[in-house]
Amino acid sequence: MKKFVNAPINFVSEMLEGLVLANPDTLKYVPEFNMIQRVDRPANGKVSIIQGSGSGHEPAHVMAVGPGMLDASAPGQVFAAPPVDACYECIKAMNSDKGVLALVNNYQGDRMNWDMAIEMAQAEGINVKQFIIDDDVAVQDSTHTVGRRGVAGNFFVIKACGAAAERGASLDELLALCEKVNGQVRTMGVALTSCTPPIKGKPIFEIGDDEMEVGVGIHGEPGRRRDKIKPADAIVDEIFDAVVRDLPFQSGDRVALMINGLGGTPISELYILYRRAAERCKEAGFTIVRNYVGEYCTSIEMAGASLTLLRLDGELEDLLAAPAEIPIRVF
Amino acid sequence: MKKFVNAPINFVSEMLEGLVLANPDTLKYVPEFNMIQRVDRPANGKVSIIQGSGSGHEPAHVMAVGPGMLDASAPGQVFAAPPVDACYECIKAMNSDKGVLALVNNYQGDRMNWDMAIEMAQAEGINVKQFIIDDDVAVQDSTHTVGRRGVAGNFFVIKACGAAAERGASLDELLALCEKVNGQVRTMGVALTSCTPPIKGKPIFEIGDDEMEVGVGIHGEPGRRRDKIKPADAIVDEIFDAVVRDLPFQSGDRVALMINGLGGTPISELYILYRRAAERCKEAGFTIVRNYVGEYCTSIEMAGASLTLLRLDGELEDLLAAPAEIPIRVF
Repeated sequence: MKKFVNAPINFVSEMLEGLVLANPDTLKYVPEFNMIQRVDRPANGKVSIIQGSGSGHEPAHVMAVGPGMLDASAPGQVFAAPPVDACYECIKAMNSDKGVLALVNNYQGDRMNWDMAIEMAQAEGINVKQFIIDDDVAVQDSTHTVGRRGVAGNFFVIKACGAAAERGASLDELLALCEKVNGQVRTMGVALTSCTPPIKGKPIFEIGDDEMEVGVGIHGEPGRRRDKIKPADAIVDEIFDAVVRDLPFQSGDRVALMINGLGGTPISELYILYRRAAERCKEAGFTIVRNYVGEYCTSIEMAGASLTLLRLDGELEDLLAAPAEIPIRVF
Repeated sequence: MKKFVNAPINFVSEMLEGLVLANPDTLKYVPEFNMIQRVDRPANGKVSIIQGSGSGHEPAHVMAVGPGMLDASAPGQVFAAPPVDACYECIKAMNSDKGVLALVNNYQGDRMNWDMAIEMAQAEGINVKQFIIDDDVAVQDSTHTVGRRGVAGNFFVIKACGAAAERGASLDELLALCEKVNGQVRTMGVALTSCTPPIKGKPIFEIGDDEMEVGVGIHGEPGRRRDKIKPADAIVDEIFDAVVRDLPFQSGDRVALMINGLGGTPISELYILYRRAAERCKEAGFTIVRNYVGEYCTSIEMAGASLTLLRLDGELEDLLAAPAEIPIRVF
């Protein structure tokens, strides 16, 4: 296993310890519940935004905690939903007079555990609601889902809600905003390699040296088909078309365009993909108002990428431009 | 070859096209000389800071162009020095009444081409000087170098000079600053896998499934030795000790600590390495004033990481805290 790891069972906890050691003034780690939270979160006066799903997708979601983004994150082990008690304790810790919003990606394990945790918290009188994100257009149902999967488009839901919450939006207003963003965002990904969860110690699927998985899920779930690797432009064309047709996006749209690396793909290749995606946007009559090239929602060390388009309006453009402070920066 | 690429010969130019398509308001691409430059660079009144070396190390150095960092970058093909004419044209394009500073990493190809380009520019009366960066402690001489290699510590030289230049420092003051930063910064890296330059189409070296290369260079040059993969903490201990002993760093030092990914290592693992490095700093009596966890200077898709320590003083702390705007961001 070609990883920097000590005991594989400690992969997530040691990553989180490293994360707070690197961000001592802004992040706090609660090891009993694997929770990362803002140290500066105002107790009341703002809806708390939380998320928790399997680890292995970093920076999602533990590195998306900070002002203007998430207030806390309760990650599970690699590719495993967070346990019910972790979700429940995260809700309780983030309780606010304006309520708590749990952003949940559409995977059966995550949904089951969050459903139960939310029910427990509501029974105690906590005002918590959830929203299910399902932006992946590749397949209708999948190994771990009924319905579509939640993937990198999730970052736009977090960003929009995080910004609106800082400005005082109510829980119901945020739920309406979630509907809007999730309704206008579409993603599809391609894998060139598999990936290895530390505890498993072996790749989660096999793939030939000349093959790619088109429409892959972020846990290596099968996509639309296995194919021979194509030139970068042809790959972009296929996933761009799939994303555009699904909404459908239309000439005149103002969009945010994200090229997301799946963990093992260098940023040089992501810009090669961006080049073609930007050309295609221009040909299609879309104006790219904001772009995002880098790693947002990964599959451990998988070589691969996804393309996300979000249709914008004045409100969303304004929210995406709002300040946010999360641990990931360069200089 | 598991890459997002069209014709391999166009790998670098298409990456640069993507980069400027994603940053149309801030970056300009000059294809004849493969040059990336700031669109807003003031023609005079500020020393211009430039750098050019082989591609494949992204974000170094084309994605380090922007206010407070580089004014322009002239990259070569993957792992190949930029040609003399590209270096020369980059100097000419960035000419300023306060002079031009070329930051050159210590590799024979880079040095030879920059030496010649600088001589040509000086013959035309351009005030250009160079500084050679050599922060890698792993080996004294290497495949591509006489003397030590320039690696991720290079980012601290860029940042300090970029900030000082924005504040009006003279060319001689910047050269003194380079001496200071390069004199106080030390790096060592470890590779778990090889990497594949697109045109070559094959890995640049072979390495066993259970092996690592300790002290690897950023072009896959041999380091100190080949060994079996060790736990993450043991790997950090070895490279931390090598870096600390070399300067040597001493109890009471205030430092910047960088854990740099080599391209294929997920950020989760970089935080596991950071965790141990931060523990070691604490034990050694170093205060970590600033930290950097992410990809700065990579080897295409190599799985691996390097550790850099920079000893700080008031001037450097101030310069590192100065604003900088480069293409790499998340939200």
